[in-house]
Amino acid sequence: MKMSHVDDAGRARMVDVGEKPDTQRAATARGRVVMQPDTLALIQAGGVPKGDVLAVAHVAGVMAAKRTHELIPMCHPLLLTHIHVAFEPRPPAAEGELAAVEITATVRCSGRTGVEMEALTAVAVAGLTIYDMCKAVDRGMRLEAVRLVRKSGGKSGEWVGE
Amino acid sequence: MKMSHVDDAGRARMVDVGEKPDTQRAATARGRVVMQPDTLALIQAGGVPKGDVLAVAHVAGVMAAKRTHELIPMCHPLLLTHIHVAFEPRPPAAEGELAAVEITATVRCSGRTGVEMEALTAVAVAGLTIYDMCKAVDRGMRLEAVRLVRKSGGKSGEWVGE
Amino acid sequence: MKMSHVDDAGRARMVDVGEKPDTQRAATARGRVVMQPDTLALIQAGGVPKGDVLAVAHVAGVMAAKRTHELIPMCHPLLLTHIHVAFEPRPPAAEGELAAVEITATVRCSGRTGVEMEALTAVAVAGLTIYDMCKAVDRGMRLEAVRLVRKSGGKSGEWVGE
Amino acid sequence: MKMSHVDDAGRARMVDVGEKPDTQRAATARGRVVMQPDTLALIQAGGVPKGDVLAVAHVAGVMAAKRTHELIPMCHPLLLTHIHVAFEPRPPAAEGELAAVEITATVRCSGRTGVEMEALTAVAVAGLTIYDMCKAVDRGMRLEAVRLVRKSGGKSGEWVGE
Amino acid sequence: MKMSHVDDAGRARMVDVGEKPDTQRAATARGRVVMQPDTLALIQAGGVPKGDVLAVAHVAGVMAAKRTHELIPMCHPLLLTHIHVAFEPRPPAAEGELAAVEITATVRCSGRTGVEMEALTAVAVAGLTIYDMCKAVDRGMRLEAVRLVRKSGGKSGEWVGE
Amino acid sequence: MKMSHVDDAGRARMVDVGEKPDTQRAATARGRVVMQPDTLALIQAGGVPKGDVLAVAHVAGVMAAKRTHELIPMCHPLLLTHIHVAFEPRPPAAEGELAAVEITATVRCSGRTGVEMEALTAVAVAGLTIYDMCKAVDRGMRLEAVRLVRKSGGKSGEWVGE
Repeated sequence: MKMSHVDDAGRARMVDVGEKPDTQRAATARGRVVMQPDTLALIQAGGVPKGDVLAVAHVAGVMAAKRTHELIPMCHPLLLTHIHVAFEPRPPAAEGELAAVEITATVRCSGRTGVEMEALTAVAVAGLTIYDMCKAVDRGMRLEAVRLVRKSGGKSGEWVGE
Repeated sequence: MKMSHVDDAGRARMVDVGEKPDTQRAATARGRVVMQPDTLALIQAGGVPKGDVLAVAHVAGVMAAKRTHELIPMCHPLLLTHIHVAFEPRPPAAEGELAAVEITATVRCSGRTGVEMEALTAVAVAGLTIYDMCKAVDRGMRLEAVRLVRKSGGKSGEWVGE
Repeated sequence: MKMSHVDDAGRARMVDVGEKPDTQRAATARGRVVMQPDTLALIQAGGVPKGDVLAVAHVAGVMAAKRTHELIPMCHPLLLTHIHVAFEPRPPAAEGELAAVEITATVRCSGRTGVEMEALTAVAVAGLTIYDMCKAVDRGMRLEAVRLVRKSGGKSGEWVGE
Repeated sequence: MKMSHVDDAGRARMVDVGEKPDTQRAATARGRVVMQPDTLALIQAGGVPKGDVLAVAHVAGVMAAKRTHELIPMCHPLLLTHIHVAFEPRPPAAEGELAAVEITATVRCSGRTGVEMEALTAVAVAGLTIYDMCKAVDRGMRLEAVRLVRKSGGKSGEWVGE
Repeated sequence: MKMSHVDDAGRARMVDVGEKPDTQRAATARGRVVMQPDTLALIQAGGVPKGDVLAVAHVAGVMAAKRTHELIPMCHPLLLTHIHVAFEPRPPAAEGELAAVEITATVRCSGRTGVEMEALTAVAVAGLTIYDMCKAVDRGMRLEAVRLVRKSGGKSGEWVGE
Repeated sequence: MKMSHVDDAGRARMVDVGEKPDTQRAATARGRVVMQPDTLALIQAGGVPKGDVLAVAHVAGVMAAKRTHELIPMCHPLLLTHIHVAFEPRPPAAEGELAAVEITATVRCSGRTGVEMEALTAVAVAGLTIYDMCKAVDRGMRLEAVRLVRKSGGKSGEWVGE
């Protein structure tokens, strides 16, 4: 029933963090772009026609982290003090399996709310950039397992995922 | 005389707030989109072809508040800690009168300058979004009475308008 | 009932304009910032401490028109070919009445959808900028009567409002 | 050896599409946010404290599609003519398994290059928004299987994935 | 006299290009960052602590070209079809002289107005990025000779500078 | 060798400033747009067809400073507390020489990292805007000598250039 939208019930809100103290916050997120082994080989050899894939994906991830609050509607703006994005090649574990590039992003700030979304956004946009740079040779790539692996700071303190 | 632009007289400035202390700031703005009674009925019934008008207008208002300093040239960037946008239907007071949706936005931050512009921008963009979502059925809608109704914090302290 | 959100009913959509032909589109919107007579006098005399109010509001309106599709969620991106923003002072009609600055924005493009939202956004952001530049001297200003006054082009052709 | 960066080899490029004809382009991407069954139940019941999760995720996905060329460095700007984002709940297939929300985004434009990245970006940002809205109750959610499922238009014509 | 701002005289305008035909446009701009010979050596050796200077500057230049109309108030939005940014090291011509990195950006589009500003913006932002990456080791760097060197397309046709 | 991109060596980083204390930071940058003497005369007379050149360049410079971290990949977001952009005409020193407009930008903030890039960005974008506004009459203009002239605050303290 649409009338429910007219009162306040169910309306999204940007949570009030004004009473929370500034603390050191950190979050690490991870994900991977799964691809043909030949595609990984091409990335590693610098042979992708569009250019140096990981150098571009790296810059894209860092810049996206800074724009997280423009993309995710209920995210607070934050003064990020550190962003780090790294890539690791994952050759296929066995013949016939797929390869991957593993992406890890760590973000830190001193603020009133966590930086999980910033780390996740950096991973997702770095991954999409890898897709964009390589799509002419491998349209079937997938972005998989984008997840938080660690956070610290704030009332909920340390959290570690897989 | 254009030479006046070459010296400093009359040039706009982004006021220096570096010496002001960080205080808790809040501002509430209000405005309304005036429309045909049938348009309001359609919004309330969820019958607007473009979709759930107020859900979209709500997100638009929250996101616009975060971008105020990109839109209003002399506005300072601020770390907003809370944004709340709410809508109230205003059926026509009497036969032959117009209906309206009243929009109220409250913004808070801890900073050196007030958040009036953020609250006003949230109201204006939420209102324009209502226009956009309904314009196929009611091109004569108007955004009226966008105004500050309350602010607190900072040297000038509490201010209450109508 | 929230389940309605899970199917497609009621979900907002960015209307498909892919089949529409490119035509010359134009739209004019208007609105006004209502203020104390002294505030208008100060604007006209160039005495507002923050600087040349209308020069800044003008640039803000033009730049905001170009960002309309970033602000209004279901708006299409468009290649605007022309943006014009103009201001007219409205001294009080009689003693004891308020003054105003009338804002008129005209936008044109060649495209598949109209530019009403771009013209309305230019008016609203120019008006908010006037508020920002003058708020230290007149916190009670209001943005009133933001409306479409004329559009042309597209299937619906010419439309003229008040 | 860093000197390779100083000549042109290996430098990324935004491919020249100036000679390609304008054709109707479409792309559909898909992905899913994997979550605890209770989290899905909460989303469906409208009980997530931050608000109506899918309404917000929907708007976020649409708006992100329009900003793809700002996020993905070598993407061309495009005049999108249609964006559609839809969600389907996936209750756990068996006891002890996880639930998911499946996200599908379709984007169309008339242009010189495809809209795969726009569809993928809409899915990723809608998925991250679901994470953000629900992270207080389920920090272990994952964004999985973000992939292109169909594209049409352009020289390479129709492509269908899984 | 400020009254001149209230009428139309002197107000900036975004020129109406609606009547111009779409033609192939290209522009090349150039500039250089002048620096200590040791700074250039460090860039070439990949020894700058902040990372691979030219890879980052390259991406920054490409991305900035796409945002030119957001930065330069009276610039029209354009659908760029190609952006290319290249760097050339300029070792000192003689002992005691400064070194430089020469930046060249070429931009193309099919549109109603030229792409000079996009090429110039790419050069300027790439140059500022070089400054940012190296400023910890050489704060005295300068961005010099940012200029248009060639344009083609449009009514004014080919133009070649130095 | 491209493998170097897969490990961490050479990857750009956004330096971690989380341990640095908040201090008052200021930076002043300067640059000039070199032009035909007739072009300067036209700017000063308000005779440039596109409008009041310096009023528009001024707003562009202020707004660009606020977006520096979106343009320069490894720049931290900062809460600028003050931005000032000023212009001085430089008539030709002798017959046959060129004229210029000198641009000076000062930026302040309280934060953990300096505001050099914000001041330099304001100068560059103000200069590019002058080019844009006047390019119809003088395509050979150049942006020259964009440089830091003074900074204060932070561990490195006061720095004064030429």
